[in-house]
Amino acid sequence: MNSVHKTALALSGGVDSTTVLQWLLDRGDSVVCVQFQYQSKHNIFEVAAAQQVYQFYARKSNLSSLSCIQVDLSGIFTYMKSNLLKGQGEIPEGHYADETMKQTVVPARNMIFLSVMAGLAESYGCNSIALGIHQGDHAIYPDCRPEFYNAMQHAVELGTGGKVAVEAPFLYATKSEIVKYGLTYGVPYHLTRTCYKEQELSCGKCGSCIERVEAFALNDCHDPITYEDERR
Amino acid sequence: MNSVHKTALALSGGVDSTTVLQWLLDRGDSVVCVQFQYQSKHNIFEVAAAQQVYQFYARKSNLSSLSCIQVDLSGIFTYMKSNLLKGQGEIPEGHYADETMKQTVVPARNMIFLSVMAGLAESYGCNSIALGIHQGDHAIYPDCRPEFYNAMQHAVELGTGGKVAVEAPFLYATKSEIVKYGLTYGVPYHLTRTCYKEQELSCGKCGSCIERVEAFALNDCHDPITYEDERR
Repeated sequence: MNSVHKTALALSGGVDSTTVLQWLLDRGDSVVCVQFQYQSKHNIFEVAAAQQVYQFYARKSNLSSLSCIQVDLSGIFTYMKSNLLKGQGEIPEGHYADETMKQTVVPARNMIFLSVMAGLAESYGCNSIALGIHQGDHAIYPDCRPEFYNAMQHAVELGTGGKVAVEAPFLYATKSEIVKYGLTYGVPYHLTRTCYKEQELSCGKCGSCIERVEAFALNDCHDPITYEDERR
Repeated sequence: MNSVHKTALALSGGVDSTTVLQWLLDRGDSVVCVQFQYQSKHNIFEVAAAQQVYQFYARKSNLSSLSCIQVDLSGIFTYMKSNLLKGQGEIPEGHYADETMKQTVVPARNMIFLSVMAGLAESYGCNSIALGIHQGDHAIYPDCRPEFYNAMQHAVELGTGGKVAVEAPFLYATKSEIVKYGLTYGVPYHLTRTCYKEQELSCGKCGSCIERVEAFALNDCHDPITYEDERR
């Protein structure tokens, strides 16, 4: 455990980044959680989830080791084309691997998130940026692949003059392996949110929901959130 | 000349990006000019200059080959620490090479600009992003160095699935070589703006102004803009 390690984490309120937060706190890091506000259909729901996750850990942790900032990126995504964004096409239903899920790709989104994180990390004196990307992030998202991650790791190191490193503890793990880690260490998955749709209850039918439910099933565990078709 | 080449250019209204615009139009490109709005002290002046430069070329060009968008990044730079930003320390006077100019570094700024450009380029169907970075951009700015540029070029290519390339036509040129090109091809330098200070007339004393004046002097040419100490 290195008590001076300070990390900036893009906390979306989903399974992956929430598990990374647990992992960082287990390591003894001081963590700056960053929540991005933009026009994705699910953004208000994911930001609300991220806030609940943050509050959960803030109650448990030494408050000086955990902080949270919300960064408004809406000026950027106004010009981007993607069904993930408000006012554009519908979120497709079905598996991530389906061709239709390509409609949810937001051009360069993760590159933008990572670059902004690099600037924030340097401004807040963080040694590194942690990411939730993992093996299960799919071929349709070019900016989720390990080779992209490696290239950005190199760019961030050069662009910050070696001050900020990038780490992705679950880069080679599957989503079910992430959930396995989280279930072992008490990650509050009941507070997280994964669905891409513009509705409060998760749909259970979009690629993002399907992958999540599968990850819990592979751990012989029921996903603790309520889905639309389970509503009474 | 390739009439289908479409390029996104971050047009700051300074000498470098304005000369790159000329270079792209000389090549026959269709160009999407992007102006970033953020809290730098000189931003309102550089955006105004970029608008004038854009209007100058729009009058000369086929309008369908030139367009312009303004992207608000102020949500991001709220959290960044730099004397270049409003409400923070003073812009130092003296040469770029001086230690004090480090105070004007905005963490990861060019990485953020470039990532946003990647997303915009993909959304607007551009084949490439063009940058004004050059040999004279200094060691104090880690995100202006060729090795950073090469790393980001690789990251952008991977992150956009090979759809968007990055080019910097003046990467190995000095600022005076850029000005030499521009003077030959009629770049409207009288409309451009370089000064870092929060004032309408350029100061002539900050590193950015000093470098600009030197570049014109090396071309045996008087810089056509008016500086504060030339005011009558």
